[in-house]
Amino acid sequence: MTLYLYGGPKTRASMPKWYAAEKGISYNYVNVDLAARQNLAPSYLEVNPFGKLPALKDDSNGLMLFESGAILQYLSENYTNEVKDPATRASISQWILFANSTLAIALFVPSNKEREFPRLMATLNDLYSKKKFLVGDCWTAADCAVNAYLGYLPIFYPNEDLSAYPEIQSLNQRTRSNQNYRQIMGL
Amino acid sequence: MTLYLYGGPKTRASMPKWYAAEKGISYNYVNVDLAARQNLAPSYLEVNPFGKLPALKDDSNGLMLFESGAILQYLSENYTNEVKDPATRASISQWILFANSTLAIALFVPSNKEREFPRLMATLNDLYSKKKFLVGDCWTAADCAVNAYLGYLPIFYPNEDLSAYPEIQSLNQRTRSNQNYRQIMGL
Repeated sequence: MTLYLYGGPKTRASMPKWYAAEKGISYNYVNVDLAARQNLAPSYLEVNPFGKLPALKDDSNGLMLFESGAILQYLSENYTNEVKDPATRASISQWILFANSTLAIALFVPSNKEREFPRLMATLNDLYSKKKFLVGDCWTAADCAVNAYLGYLPIFYPNEDLSAYPEIQSLNQRTRSNQNYRQIMGL
Repeated sequence: MTLYLYGGPKTRASMPKWYAAEKGISYNYVNVDLAARQNLAPSYLEVNPFGKLPALKDDSNGLMLFESGAILQYLSENYTNEVKDPATRASISQWILFANSTLAIALFVPSNKEREFPRLMATLNDLYSKKKFLVGDCWTAADCAVNAYLGYLPIFYPNEDLSAYPEIQSLNQRTRSNQNYRQIMGL
């Protein structure tokens, strides 16, 4: 049984890499050179027809999977014991979609940022003030996805004032001092 | 066992509504009036702390769920027989994330539309020329999510020339002539 994770520097491969490191999931890493257009080579288009990174191949069942969030969810469900019932699985999927869709669009769609961003931050800050983890009582793929997105804030918006959201600030501090995260992000 | 779907006109509730109609899943529909700010009432914030629509409540296990994609996935996994193994589940999750994240961002982030949109459309057109359905041999939550997003194209971009993507055009025709879709979208 072997997992292959296809990624490259500055791609969203960092999210499943961080998750796998935290959960002790081993895999073979395949570096796909975007500059050399290796992502458009026929052999890679068989793994992901869109030629985007990351992707995952699981030799145990022949699965080839793209979308960083789907990879995270697959690892969570099949290579950890954090999913115990359909409700937990659904809640983890909810937060992964929240991160990769709602939060991503709020951060990167200019017309949305002003309106959506403060509302999302205020609610997230409130939730994290009551509970250390988003689903259950341990760090799951839900936290990985949301923490990784929030971790982009100081990178993409270094001048953004987050002082109204102290829980997010301290969460970002924990993320950025995490050894696996630092290594994967090259910090 | 009762499902409650919270939605409103012109929200992404249309996606799970369409899916439930196609699959014969029954639920109680709760209309949340955004103009009257019912979505910010404490009773609704208990269902979705972000006050966004849609959301789902499942009385059988107490689950409260937001994110249209997570709702779709939950219905697919628990109220239909389309998910038969972890690989199918992962592939459906991949396409839901593709629709709600990659495709949404390509459509609605102006800087991405020019670069990403033609690439995604060309690949989708190619995939649909080879296979009628995205996962397995029947219409699943994967098709629902992708078809619903592609169905936005003539609405948000009525002048977009899609003639280079005949499979997408005929797919959109099928979507827009689907009786359940027409009723839910008010066409």
